[in-house]
Amino acid sequence: MLEVKTPEQVLDLIRTEFAPIQAPAREADLTEALGRVLAEDVAAREYVPDFDRSTVDGYAVRARDTFGCSDAIPAILPLAGEILMGQGAPSPLEPETCWAVPTGGAMPAGADAAVMVEYTEDYGDGTVGISKSAAPGQNMIFRGDDVYPGKVILEKGHVLSSQDIGALAAIGLARVRVVPRLRVGILSTGDELVPPEAVPGPGQVRDVNGPMLCAMLRGFGAEPVSYGIVKDNEAQLAATVDRAMAECDAVLLSGGSSVGVKDAACRIIEQRGQLLLHGIAMKPGKPTILGRAGNKPLVGLPGHPVAAYFITKLFVLPLLSRLEGRVQAHYTVAARITESVSANHGRAQYGCVRLLQKEGQLWAQPIRGKSGLITTLAGAEGYFEISRDCEGIPRGAEIQVTITTGE
Amino acid sequence: MLEVKTPEQVLDLIRTEFAPIQAPAREADLTEALGRVLAEDVAAREYVPDFDRSTVDGYAVRARDTFGCSDAIPAILPLAGEILMGQGAPSPLEPETCWAVPTGGAMPAGADAAVMVEYTEDYGDGTVGISKSAAPGQNMIFRGDDVYPGKVILEKGHVLSSQDIGALAAIGLARVRVVPRLRVGILSTGDELVPPEAVPGPGQVRDVNGPMLCAMLRGFGAEPVSYGIVKDNEAQLAATVDRAMAECDAVLLSGGSSVGVKDAACRIIEQRGQLLLHGIAMKPGKPTILGRAGNKPLVGLPGHPVAAYFITKLFVLPLLSRLEGRVQAHYTVAARITESVSANHGRAQYGCVRLLQKEGQLWAQPIRGKSGLITTLAGAEGYFEISRDCEGIPRGAEIQVTITTGE
Repeated sequence: MLEVKTPEQVLDLIRTEFAPIQAPAREADLTEALGRVLAEDVAAREYVPDFDRSTVDGYAVRARDTFGCSDAIPAILPLAGEILMGQGAPSPLEPETCWAVPTGGAMPAGADAAVMVEYTEDYGDGTVGISKSAAPGQNMIFRGDDVYPGKVILEKGHVLSSQDIGALAAIGLARVRVVPRLRVGILSTGDELVPPEAVPGPGQVRDVNGPMLCAMLRGFGAEPVSYGIVKDNEAQLAATVDRAMAECDAVLLSGGSSVGVKDAACRIIEQRGQLLLHGIAMKPGKPTILGRAGNKPLVGLPGHPVAAYFITKLFVLPLLSRLEGRVQAHYTVAARITESVSANHGRAQYGCVRLLQKEGQLWAQPIRGKSGLITTLAGAEGYFEISRDCEGIPRGAEIQVTITTGE
Repeated sequence: MLEVKTPEQVLDLIRTEFAPIQAPAREADLTEALGRVLAEDVAAREYVPDFDRSTVDGYAVRARDTFGCSDAIPAILPLAGEILMGQGAPSPLEPETCWAVPTGGAMPAGADAAVMVEYTEDYGDGTVGISKSAAPGQNMIFRGDDVYPGKVILEKGHVLSSQDIGALAAIGLARVRVVPRLRVGILSTGDELVPPEAVPGPGQVRDVNGPMLCAMLRGFGAEPVSYGIVKDNEAQLAATVDRAMAECDAVLLSGGSSVGVKDAACRIIEQRGQLLLHGIAMKPGKPTILGRAGNKPLVGLPGHPVAAYFITKLFVLPLLSRLEGRVQAHYTVAARITESVSANHGRAQYGCVRLLQKEGQLWAQPIRGKSGLITTLAGAEGYFEISRDCEGIPRGAEIQVTITTGE
């Protein structure tokens, strides 16, 4: 019999027992790349910017030709012409001349500074007066200042943000190689379950975990594959698990709150691979099973939706990240707790909160419901952890909240 | 001439000048409802749970029948039968009897407590011994403890999370009324622009804002409609703006860093409605235009991608939220800054950061690039603000970072 593990031990197990999937990368268009995981380092293939540019509206000059000038004694330079946006400089800058240049315009070869139009006067006779001396490099960006060929700008495993997509567009990568979306099978088990649209008969309850897990997986960037509700029948369960394991990269078995289903799930895993975990020392979520067949995980989630939510958030999504080679940090927000919360010493405990701003301070209000059912968690904005060596949190203490709004 | 406004004034302007769109709500299936905005309050129509349930594996009893029992003197109760998962109790509990009940199983009428199997012994002769007295209500959830008909569980304007979807499934709402996705037109203007897949000729640059804005809008939950790159030609620009305004709920005009395009954009807005804003006192992002034709906003974004990014994040998305009636809070993470940053007194200033964990402390490293081009922002994890009455932030000071990873 496997012993119950702590949350930290479970995360270690995920790292040691599973490896990134060796699936061929997929090409994604930039317009569909948001939130996708990079399959390889992205290096620039060219210079950004690709030409020396002015950062001001004004005149391209050789800095030395302006040294010592002032309002009283401007440097007077013949105007060689006007550089237009979207066009290169027609010819190099001759010493002791200037070109008119717009913001973002190409600097002519030989120019090493731009003077803002505010410090100049166009005399209208083919010459321009410069009343402020420019330092070399002033008001311009040089070719490759931002990026040069071979510079890695995003690393393998990175999750693409809108800014990253802007950066990829800037270096001319209209397509990018990403990790294929993981297909994750979801089975809900239990004789008491009916679909959400059904009216439960006596003793029946709706399948909450199916739609919730679909949403969590979709929000994470995986592709959920629903295998519906399977009755508590080991042969039927085994057949559906086999189909899901063949079609998907990972399988979540939700429900099985009854001892019979849990035992059946363990047997099914052991017949197909290896049982790695049978129980996590946390509340809610203790009755969690994890196994693998090859590198494919099979997770038995608790039937209780709140427990299934936390197990998925804390362990299933990190496990999927591991399979993808995804590198994603996790940030928390500090808030004061509005009421004291007691905890079971020896078990990590998780609870949902609503957040409120009061007197310039963020407060976290623990959501309680006698039953702890999922409906009490509608509108929750985040969750917090009470570690297993802590007996509780006093009112007003600062806690770290993981934000979950909209995800 | 309109005067330059502060960021706070711009947010006020958005609240006072625009109203939620009166579009008919759309029915969304729960499987596609993640991240959507509720079009109306959601109230429960039934009780959750719908029947009294046991929270343990054990026996349903009348609590008073167990009072005073102990290991030495168990209460001996005839076993009336076994309640199965997914089935109601066949008949009420007769006084001084018990029913076997699984976790989550229906309690028979007349039972007011469940005793855990650990504190019982089945004598095998049709009776069960109870060795621990139960308090009324112990180990059970009553009908409606969680939710009762008419209770509002989620409010209009709320953005649906996976937990919310679980809650909606629990109360039998397989479909939910949501605000239609906003259609937002994007035009990039500028003679110097070429599409990301093109190789820029002399003086040309790739259109970065188009793909970046598409990604930002999609991440927000709107539907971007691309009108491509429009040359600096007022008649052509006006025609494309008219088409976009007719087809979309809002239009973003990106580029127009040149004075000519800005002036043309202002004229186009004034001919069709009202110019509300011409410049924001912030860095980057000053040259921003906002107007409206009826309740439809037309925004002229700066051409510089970093400026366009911040203006979209700080003002365009709040403006779209206003049109949707979306209620969404914004949270920041505290971090210490790794180096001092100076600021222009009198203008709010925004900068991107990378985050690193060091000695149990979160540090924010400002991303600098000589040019401040978007490529330097690849991999940025968040941004921070320096308010306009602040002259800079010293190294080691705590700042508030808005996280942007993956969005």
